[in-house]
Amino acid sequence: MASNEFDLIARYFARQPVQRRDVTLAIGDDCALLEVPAGSHLAVSTDSLVCGNHFLPEMDPALLAKKALAANLSDLAAMGATPAWVSLALTLPEADEAWLARFCEGFFEMADYYQVQLIGGDTTKGPLSLTLTVQGFVPHGQALTRHGASSGDWIYVTGCLGDSAAGLSVLLDQAEQNDPVLAEYLLNRHYQPQPRVLAGQALRGIASSALDISDGLIADLGHILTRSQVGAVIDVDNLPLSPELVAFCGGDREAAIRMALTSGEEYELCFTVPAHNRGTLDVALSHTGVKATCIGQIRPGSSAVLERNGQQLDWQLRGYDHFSG
Amino acid sequence: MASNEFDLIARYFARQPVQRRDVTLAIGDDCALLEVPAGSHLAVSTDSLVCGNHFLPEMDPALLAKKALAANLSDLAAMGATPAWVSLALTLPEADEAWLARFCEGFFEMADYYQVQLIGGDTTKGPLSLTLTVQGFVPHGQALTRHGASSGDWIYVTGCLGDSAAGLSVLLDQAEQNDPVLAEYLLNRHYQPQPRVLAGQALRGIASSALDISDGLIADLGHILTRSQVGAVIDVDNLPLSPELVAFCGGDREAAIRMALTSGEEYELCFTVPAHNRGTLDVALSHTGVKATCIGQIRPGSSAVLERNGQQLDWQLRGYDHFSG
Repeated sequence: MASNEFDLIARYFARQPVQRRDVTLAIGDDCALLEVPAGSHLAVSTDSLVCGNHFLPEMDPALLAKKALAANLSDLAAMGATPAWVSLALTLPEADEAWLARFCEGFFEMADYYQVQLIGGDTTKGPLSLTLTVQGFVPHGQALTRHGASSGDWIYVTGCLGDSAAGLSVLLDQAEQNDPVLAEYLLNRHYQPQPRVLAGQALRGIASSALDISDGLIADLGHILTRSQVGAVIDVDNLPLSPELVAFCGGDREAAIRMALTSGEEYELCFTVPAHNRGTLDVALSHTGVKATCIGQIRPGSSAVLERNGQQLDWQLRGYDHFSG
Repeated sequence: MASNEFDLIARYFARQPVQRRDVTLAIGDDCALLEVPAGSHLAVSTDSLVCGNHFLPEMDPALLAKKALAANLSDLAAMGATPAWVSLALTLPEADEAWLARFCEGFFEMADYYQVQLIGGDTTKGPLSLTLTVQGFVPHGQALTRHGASSGDWIYVTGCLGDSAAGLSVLLDQAEQNDPVLAEYLLNRHYQPQPRVLAGQALRGIASSALDISDGLIADLGHILTRSQVGAVIDVDNLPLSPELVAFCGGDREAAIRMALTSGEEYELCFTVPAHNRGTLDVALSHTGVKATCIGQIRPGSSAVLERNGQQLDWQLRGYDHFSG
């Protein structure tokens, strides 16, 4: 087993498949040297995953790598940015080559798919955790921010919501699950979120605001409302639910809807669209193969109101908070 | 005590003093949106500090923040880059407001000094550690890399070497130290390294290669030699030693020299200069107030040879390696 930090880094991280032309100097010097295209903003996002908090120690390192990268790429997607580069800070309890090899397998498979080049990072000894910083480009004036929603805009989400929380329940054995096919579907949805990279770029010039759902729809939509200084109404019966989620809830649609409202780590996009852009939206998204569902509307106010058939609901819900007891 | 992650982030990290004009959107959205000047490369570096490995749990959070930022800025300095932005991923065992307040005090003091804006990051719960990604600019063709050294180039280091290791010995009580003024000097040198940001920029167009000393002179010079495919000779009697280091070693210059060769976390620059640039070097550095000392010369070969009065020494030395037993 290699015991030298530099050997480890050189062996596993210098062999990446992606070589971008905008990377003048990658791993191996004090800094990477990079080229940002003229007329574009650089978009940057950082996410940490800590063992025992964000994932279990026995998680397959390949899935962990993919999920970490997906979570970061999802932030670029939510900005409408095109991914370009990633830095990886990896803290490991020991220089476990089998673990590293499997981690790199997953990491580079996803990096290759999205044409993202690893440009640097750090490998340190300590409790297992990883921090990724992804960077991408978005043409000037076309970034999807959280502060652009206006009263009257329609609220959409991509894909289905709630599967990730159901997958986590299966994983933690909180829910008995006798259907192995259903369990596998939900676990897969929890472990392998698909960042909506193409959909995010398709929303440039169409959506008035956007973010990705990492802490639960209600908590995340709250960020748009706060920063845009608006309120919202959500029709809970319009939330997109997978048949698998409803089956997982034993056919209890109400329970499934609650999961859809609060499930974190979905990495679907939540975005707002002015009425006059709704036609363009359908065309733009049809090219990406991503389904979007209208779940409500922005209104004057400061919070999200849940409704059913025009009647307000008084459900108590909360998002995910790392520091809550 | 605040228990909400978003409150914490908002309260402590959104109140930073630096507001750069090249930051279109900073903390609070999915990504930061940034502007890289035309004609410049973006330089990016990532460093992690893990409690128990890189620092002790009782370390003053303000000093920790400064040291982390200094270590990262040192990588930009070694590239000849001008610092611009930093992302901070902070993992904390608990939402300790006193700790966070003190951390931010140190962090923003140094960020302000170097005009570096915090553009984002992540706050997670777990074993104490932090990962910083700094970014800066360097004009096209002027970056100081590790692969440009040629046989005949002279080898320089900034400042004095060895103090950081001596300070660590004082800290760990490995060395009895009866002189409190000396102990304080060395501790300060260990805790508060000065990144050579201005010196690095002054070396553009003058140095043929450069890096910063984080793992010890011999280990780090080895990176230049490997990537430049050259060897080197170091005259050990030319190594710049502080009087305090020599005093710490009880007047034993030999012991001080060995510390200077292997001491990590010095964050001084080691660089090579072609003979015809030596005059320009003195002028350029005089404007920065940083002293540089010529310690040897690049030669054909593949490793560094230690000499004294032209005679080769057979000292056994090694650099710092996180994963060694």
